[in-house]
Amino acid sequence: MSLLYTLDLIGTAAFAASGAWAGIRRRMDLLGVLVLGVVTATGGGTLRDILLGDVPPFSFKDETYLYLSFAVALVVFFCHRRLEFLQHPLQYFDAVGLGTFVVIGTGKALAFEMGFIGAVVMGVMTATAGGVIRDVLSNQVPLILRKEVYASACIAGALLMVVLHRLGVDHPVAALAAALVVIAVRLLAVRYNWALPRAEQ
Amino acid sequence: MSLLYTLDLIGTAAFAASGAWAGIRRRMDLLGVLVLGVVTATGGGTLRDILLGDVPPFSFKDETYLYLSFAVALVVFFCHRRLEFLQHPLQYFDAVGLGTFVVIGTGKALAFEMGFIGAVVMGVMTATAGGVIRDVLSNQVPLILRKEVYASACIAGALLMVVLHRLGVDHPVAALAAALVVIAVRLLAVRYNWALPRAEQ
Amino acid sequence: MSLLYTLDLIGTAAFAASGAWAGIRRRMDLLGVLVLGVVTATGGGTLRDILLGDVPPFSFKDETYLYLSFAVALVVFFCHRRLEFLQHPLQYFDAVGLGTFVVIGTGKALAFEMGFIGAVVMGVMTATAGGVIRDVLSNQVPLILRKEVYASACIAGALLMVVLHRLGVDHPVAALAAALVVIAVRLLAVRYNWALPRAEQ
Repeated sequence: MSLLYTLDLIGTAAFAASGAWAGIRRRMDLLGVLVLGVVTATGGGTLRDILLGDVPPFSFKDETYLYLSFAVALVVFFCHRRLEFLQHPLQYFDAVGLGTFVVIGTGKALAFEMGFIGAVVMGVMTATAGGVIRDVLSNQVPLILRKEVYASACIAGALLMVVLHRLGVDHPVAALAAALVVIAVRLLAVRYNWALPRAEQ
Repeated sequence: MSLLYTLDLIGTAAFAASGAWAGIRRRMDLLGVLVLGVVTATGGGTLRDILLGDVPPFSFKDETYLYLSFAVALVVFFCHRRLEFLQHPLQYFDAVGLGTFVVIGTGKALAFEMGFIGAVVMGVMTATAGGVIRDVLSNQVPLILRKEVYASACIAGALLMVVLHRLGVDHPVAALAAALVVIAVRLLAVRYNWALPRAEQ
Repeated sequence: MSLLYTLDLIGTAAFAASGAWAGIRRRMDLLGVLVLGVVTATGGGTLRDILLGDVPPFSFKDETYLYLSFAVALVVFFCHRRLEFLQHPLQYFDAVGLGTFVVIGTGKALAFEMGFIGAVVMGVMTATAGGVIRDVLSNQVPLILRKEVYASACIAGALLMVVLHRLGVDHPVAALAAALVVIAVRLLAVRYNWALPRAEQ
């Protein structure tokens, strides 16, 4: 559990950094960069908790998430030039965050007795909705709707976790397997430039 | 009740199809088309349930809605060329969905003891918010805010239903009358190209 | 309390007017102008109540807010040319609304036992989220993320209120001080064209 919490904070920091960077690229001011950082890091889990009726959401119950995202976004804002070298390794932390968020979201949905597809949707949403809100606030079509395998990695992991849960596999084992699938698919997609099919026009 | 459920599923399928088609037109990939289909079909009722505090929302309690929207969006994605002939009749199913959604939303708000204008807003929102989210995710000003009588049909129906309810008319009668008003106004608006006034500049 | 309610309604009317004007400038039709007016006026408090789990939100419990915003948006729609002279004084009512919304939001969050940063976020969100939704629906990057000190005034006021609360200062005194800070910073920012730093590119 303590390991999961550590991974969760790593993912939160990575998501906050990528949100803050997106704000800087869009030439936002300090406040805009802070908002994008925090929303990217906590938006998915917050939406999940609203839908599950578990309010106030996790980010308001344990304020560590808010403090951490604000701090990371602040540092990125003031030092983003000197942190340029972090952009590449950030992808790895981002993948860890993705896997962790999927596992936490799916697990919570199962604990709240969501059905098969509901649990999968909640898991994927936990990991991706923050980025969707970030893109909507930046006035762009969300990246995951356009050209990334980003969400597919999450779907694969969430599906696996729900199936293993149904088969009676122990929760920690199912969670570990699901997280590894998300991280592996994600990193392979980055490496080999995978893309989903597009409808013929 | 069983009739209402049937109409509800017809409307869900029609909304999912129109959302999926919007995604294809915007050149989204498979995932984007699925998300737009599901969000268009279930977004309005989900927002209504969040506002009423009836969570998890209907779409997570009865997963039929999620399965149906995913299935319809999948079929549209892979067969949209061969389904081109359905675009015109889709308007009729869409109007049925609009009427049904208004009636279900307004009825639920009345059951939750919302006031006059609150019930009207909830009814209209149930029918239109899915399309609004679809347009926001597609990075467009929502269609209903620009040039359609789409929402006006819903407002007329929801107003009628709340007034009939206040006058003590039986629920099924009020619901039927309201749904017919929505469907009739909607189809007449399509047929005669009605538009709302715009402020002089 | 009665004074706070009066200020709250003044702020609601000012926010509804600014939302309606934004809709007219974007050439929306009647419905679009009404929706933007109502959403701008009630969106922030509604989001706050969803996050606090206090649903149905305030705007559905006391329908005065909905009636008032609809009425103001209607009047602006039909008389906006003759009301042109109100655009400048509107800034003052808007500032009053901003201060009142921050104080109400922060106070409610403290009453719901939110932590330090959670209460600040809720206060700022109550005052600014309506404008963010307005801008997202108008397909623009939210104004507060780009170039206004708008939100900074709210942050200063919310921070002050939470600090005074922690120090044991009476609620009415803390609220008054916080509201005055928001209003003063806001009006000074308008007067002297203050801006937040932007990250070097």
